[in-house]
Amino acid sequence: MKKLSRKKFIQKTALLTGSASLLLSSCTSGEEKKIVTPNIITNKKYRWRMVTTWPPNFPVFGEGCTRFAQMVSEMSGGRMEIKVYGSGELVPALESFEATRVGAAEMYHGASYYWAGKDTATQFFASIPFGMNAQQMHAWILNGGGYELWREVYDRFDLVPFLGGNSGVQMGGWFNKEINSPEDIKGLKMRIPGLGGKVLEKAGGAAVLVSGGELYTSLERGVIDATEWVGPYHDYLLGLYKIAKYYYAPGWHEPGSVLELVVNKQMYNALPLDMQKIIEHAAHSLHLWGFHEFEAKNNIYLDKIKRESQVEFKLFPQDVLDLLRGKMDETLEEIIADNPMSKKVYESFSQFAKQVRGWSEYSEKLYHNKISF
Amino acid sequence: MKKLSRKKFIQKTALLTGSASLLLSSCTSGEEKKIVTPNIITNKKYRWRMVTTWPPNFPVFGEGCTRFAQMVSEMSGGRMEIKVYGSGELVPALESFEATRVGAAEMYHGASYYWAGKDTATQFFASIPFGMNAQQMHAWILNGGGYELWREVYDRFDLVPFLGGNSGVQMGGWFNKEINSPEDIKGLKMRIPGLGGKVLEKAGGAAVLVSGGELYTSLERGVIDATEWVGPYHDYLLGLYKIAKYYYAPGWHEPGSVLELVVNKQMYNALPLDMQKIIEHAAHSLHLWGFHEFEAKNNIYLDKIKRESQVEFKLFPQDVLDLLRGKMDETLEEIIADNPMSKKVYESFSQFAKQVRGWSEYSEKLYHNKISF
Repeated sequence: MKKLSRKKFIQKTALLTGSASLLLSSCTSGEEKKIVTPNIITNKKYRWRMVTTWPPNFPVFGEGCTRFAQMVSEMSGGRMEIKVYGSGELVPALESFEATRVGAAEMYHGASYYWAGKDTATQFFASIPFGMNAQQMHAWILNGGGYELWREVYDRFDLVPFLGGNSGVQMGGWFNKEINSPEDIKGLKMRIPGLGGKVLEKAGGAAVLVSGGELYTSLERGVIDATEWVGPYHDYLLGLYKIAKYYYAPGWHEPGSVLELVVNKQMYNALPLDMQKIIEHAAHSLHLWGFHEFEAKNNIYLDKIKRESQVEFKLFPQDVLDLLRGKMDETLEEIIADNPMSKKVYESFSQFAKQVRGWSEYSEKLYHNKISF
Repeated sequence: MKKLSRKKFIQKTALLTGSASLLLSSCTSGEEKKIVTPNIITNKKYRWRMVTTWPPNFPVFGEGCTRFAQMVSEMSGGRMEIKVYGSGELVPALESFEATRVGAAEMYHGASYYWAGKDTATQFFASIPFGMNAQQMHAWILNGGGYELWREVYDRFDLVPFLGGNSGVQMGGWFNKEINSPEDIKGLKMRIPGLGGKVLEKAGGAAVLVSGGELYTSLERGVIDATEWVGPYHDYLLGLYKIAKYYYAPGWHEPGSVLELVVNKQMYNALPLDMQKIIEHAAHSLHLWGFHEFEAKNNIYLDKIKRESQVEFKLFPQDVLDLLRGKMDETLEEIIADNPMSKKVYESFSQFAKQVRGWSEYSEKLYHNKISF
């Protein structure tokens, strides 16, 4: 099926709610019968497609997908080959979830907060402003009940989610307006999507939608006063250090954004056990690589920004952070008020966060304040 | 081969330095010829043995090994089955490295600082007092050149190392003597092995060797004034909260101890590519699970210790930490002075540590001080 007809196919199928019958009539390759004796290697070949929410070969994000495909190919002895599509190559970025749901692609790589419009509960599996950092999120997902809830939320969309990386604590963003008090948030025009944007709006700012491709020009021409992006590595590649006066920390809006590798449920269930497990552990190996690739690259590019630019590094004042945190609490109340699944996920998330932060007080926080000096 | 004759076999072979010829005459199962066309699934079965430096089924440490064996079995469609032996079941804990080197076991699970007697350079791949935390260590190993150095060090022993977990920041230990100033370190009898023990000795304390099984009684009877162990989870299981007055933090001596999964080189190289990659990514998936299992369990058991005991939580005073850090710097100078490989590894380790700590100042440190409050 060629690119254009595939896109039309998805546009049609996306209008329908039932996906099982569509799966059977689509020309995808994973809809074989479930093999009941799982631990027998078959010579069946799988040719799967992964759509992504990232531009083709986007550093770390897209690179990781290519590495994942290679891991699966190697571990399966070539029985599964996955072709990775950048955003727009097969479907637009924000159609990845739906395309995988209806089986037009077997899997996608993205981040769960993109799907808040489908279900507000999805956001807890990516990052919540003033929420947990990467280490805490991973402990919740892997060992604290988070995975089970994530699967429950995605099961309703016929999808199976896996960990697929983490950006780590992001930077607070690039500003051409100094933030000295809560007053300075009022009227601030900032590119900041998702929950961070909602919080900024509640605090009196204006969250502006700007695509990645237009960010540089928008900040340069003063269309916006500020923008967040990712961390020093990606921010450097976008050249934002050339046109901004201030680089703010911390990234209160994304303290550790989990990336996801998500598979169509029917297609996943139709795989023999060895192939299912190869996908699961390849996703976890990708997760490990991706998270630490951000860490390793951010430290190098932070140095480059400091050496190559005149940008001033600044911290958000405590009263500004207090204001934003208060607005986040309001936002959370709204999210859980009208969605029982969000409430259920939030309860697990916040209970784990409270307890793990008690432990962080004696471990990671003391490491940063008392050991690593 | 039965347990006793196996042990005798190892005792004999351990006396010899060349391992290749021994491999060929041993009755192990992995010494087949290298398969040149790697991506072909063969039906060859592997029955491998993993020895470990942990008691059988030791929480997290030993549990992780069992999970690893299951991952490999499932991903390989049952072509590789690994039998896990607790310490003493096939060989004593501290013979694991040598047993795997000579091929009496195909792999072991342990921690690289146990092998400082073989080569002082090994210690950098586990944990160094006042060194990097888990996140930073993993970024160095996976994405900052650490893995290449680790393989170089272990290659000289015919071993191939992989990440296999991390305890996270440990606790500073259980004390029956209050530590208010550097003077209180003088004469302190503490169970603290490895580099931490050397540092304590340099600072005027006495590092005492006590096995895990005798720790409780030794502390209870005043044979020792203090002991470190792991973190709240394992410390609780040992019951130390019942007999100690103070629980100190931070664990300056082990800020993030990497565990390892290590394979005999000849046996690894003889595997087809799919099996090699299954072992590699299973190790990384184990690493991810193990590290976060410590995190998830420590937060629960910290709460239990607080609720169920009268133990007082205390922080080491800054001048005590300064003293210990100074002694660690001296210790490092000694290690790198008489071993060129240690010097080479240290240079990579310390350069990465310096840079990544610059980034942590804006990311994780701010998270703990400004976001997670």
